Amino acid sequence: MLKPLGNRVIVEVAKEEEKSIGGIVLPSSAKEKSQTGTVIAAGPGRVTDNGVTIEMTVKAGDTVLFEKYAGTEVKYGGTEYLVIKESDIVAILD
Amino acid sequence: MLKPLGNRVIVEVAKEEEKSIGGIVLPSSAKEKSQTGTVIAAGPGRVTDNGVTIEMTVKAGDTVLFEKYAGTEVKYGGTEYLVIKESDIVAILD
Amino acid sequence: MLKPLGNRVIVEVAKEEEKSIGGIVLPSSAKEKSQTGTVIAAGPGRVTDNGVTIEMTVKAGDTVLFEKYAGTEVKYGGTEYLVIKESDIVAILD
Amino acid sequence: MLKPLGNRVIVEVAKEEEKSIGGIVLPSSAKEKSQTGTVIAAGPGRVTDNGVTIEMTVKAGDTVLFEKYAGTEVKYGGTEYLVIKESDIVAILD
Amino acid sequence: MLKPLGNRVIVEVAKEEEKSIGGIVLPSSAKEKSQTGTVIAAGPGRVTDNGVTIEMTVKAGDTVLFEKYAGTEVKYGGTEYLVIKESDIVAILD
Amino acid sequence: MLKPLGNRVIVEVAKEEEKSIGGIVLPSSAKEKSQTGTVIAAGPGRVTDNGVTIEMTVKAGDTVLFEKYAGTEVKYGGTEYLVIKESDIVAILD
Amino acid sequence: MLKPLGNRVIVEVAKEEEKSIGGIVLPSSAKEKSQTGTVIAAGPGRVTDNGVTIEMTVKAGDTVLFEKYAGTEVKYGGTEYLVIKESDIVAILD
Repeated sequence: MLKPLGNRVIVEVAKEEEKSIGGIVLPSSAKEKSQTGTVIAAGPGRVTDNGVTIEMTVKAGDTVLFEKYAGTEVKYGGTEYLVIKESDIVAILD
Repeated sequence: MLKPLGNRVIVEVAKEEEKSIGGIVLPSSAKEKSQTGTVIAAGPGRVTDNGVTIEMTVKAGDTVLFEKYAGTEVKYGGTEYLVIKESDIVAILD
Repeated sequence: MLKPLGNRVIVEVAKEEEKSIGGIVLPSSAKEKSQTGTVIAAGPGRVTDNGVTIEMTVKAGDTVLFEKYAGTEVKYGGTEYLVIKESDIVAILD
Repeated sequence: MLKPLGNRVIVEVAKEEEKSIGGIVLPSSAKEKSQTGTVIAAGPGRVTDNGVTIEMTVKAGDTVLFEKYAGTEVKYGGTEYLVIKESDIVAILD
Repeated sequence: MLKPLGNRVIVEVAKEEEKSIGGIVLPSSAKEKSQTGTVIAAGPGRVTDNGVTIEMTVKAGDTVLFEKYAGTEVKYGGTEYLVIKESDIVAILD
Repeated sequence: MLKPLGNRVIVEVAKEEEKSIGGIVLPSSAKEKSQTGTVIAAGPGRVTDNGVTIEMTVKAGDTVLFEKYAGTEVKYGGTEYLVIKESDIVAILD
Repeated sequence: MLKPLGNRVIVEVAKEEEKSIGGIVLPSSAKEKSQTGTVIAAGPGRVTDNGVTIEMTVKAGDTVLFEKYAGTEVKYGGTEYLVIKESDIVAILD
């Protein structure tokens, strides 16, 4: 299992052909890469300089829209994931 | 539904031909892209390093003027939206 | 009405021919663009990371001197305004 | 013994041929350098400007996934280690 | 009257021929522009993110030495002034 | 005597021929310059914006491993030292 | 008299021929400019965003070693001084 640190989130990126499922269509300039996915795991939150832990808003199971070029790709158990900071998540698709 | 995170706001950008509606005329250099729109949804506000949530000023239904080139475009249900941070909103048009 | 957000201020820029009115003469390098104007509306103030609102010093009616190239131009009701942050205002002309 | 300072962590980098052990396969662009390893020692944590020590999440024995190009390589007792900041550790592999 | 905002200071720059008055001789590389002057008016001080106003050290009448290239030039009532931040003032000449 | 200020540390750099003493062998790319040394004197610690002094971890006599290119070289009493900030010290060799 | 502001320090730079006095010999690359001097006057200390004044460590009379290229040169009463921030002072020579 991947346990993300801080405010990092593990996202399973939506496949390109699913791009219009759920009503989301990204603009043409973003066609090469999907910007939506499902949260697999979320870190405990960022700890600030005051020792405060900022709780996460997203949780496992959420469908999220994230900034282009955000995160780091990893493969785990044959599936490709994106490790991304919550601050790069734009919105939750409800 | 798009639920924006932090201090992000979902804006439906005003169409170019509506540019002079409500008395707003943007200068010629900005003609290619509208800088006004209607807020569809607003995030809960930015959480600072002290764990304080800075409440949002704009709310759904507000007409706003925002900085040029601000935000990220997304399409949802056939409509194009702009996801923008409140700090890039210049003024509310009342 | 334009209601500026945060520490933004709506300024009606002084016309070039008014440049020497009130005794202010700007240096030659600034002749292309006036750096003085009248405050039309002022935001509620910047909210800091501690949740403190820093109150504004300038208010509607003040004549102000601002930094060159500061702010964003908008037209509203046929008049051109400058939306500017208070931190880019140099001095109040009293 | 190497005692890392602040939020630094001593990592024994996984050998290239172990790359698929535990189910982790990194994408082709990362093939030149492994991004996983075992924590040998962890510092006491970063001390912030408020004098607060931010406790470490990773501990000796953890298998971790870290950012590409992170850290400084050192050899100690014939083994090559990576000294890396915890903020450059993406996730713990559990 | 010019009422400077924040930690800004209005300075009447010393004329070039006064450069050696009071014993100050600036190095040759600074000969094009005087770096000393008299404070005409001082702002109330910078307000920090904690809502604290940092009181000014310089006051009207002080002779000050400031960093090269600091500030913004304005003319007021026929006299040229420099509007400068206190943090760009190096020392008070006593 | 050299009394370092803030979080600075005076280090006597290990000679190149001592590079493998204690089991430390640095990678080939670092061969031109040693990255280990002995602490001769340590400052009182960095004072933060809150007036807190962050106590030093290293002390005189410690053998330390530091970042490449860190610090400023000085000679004192015929010996060459490196003045380095504690934040550039990677680990203590115990 | 020069009264430095904030954490600035007025230093009388040691003459080149005094470079080896007191046992300090700077490396060849620094030969063009002395990096040691005597403190003539020290400011009251830097005021932080919390309104805290960070007291100065150096005082008039101290011999100090400072970073290369630090500070601003001024001449006063025929003597050349360096105005330098305490954070650019490396160590006190005792």
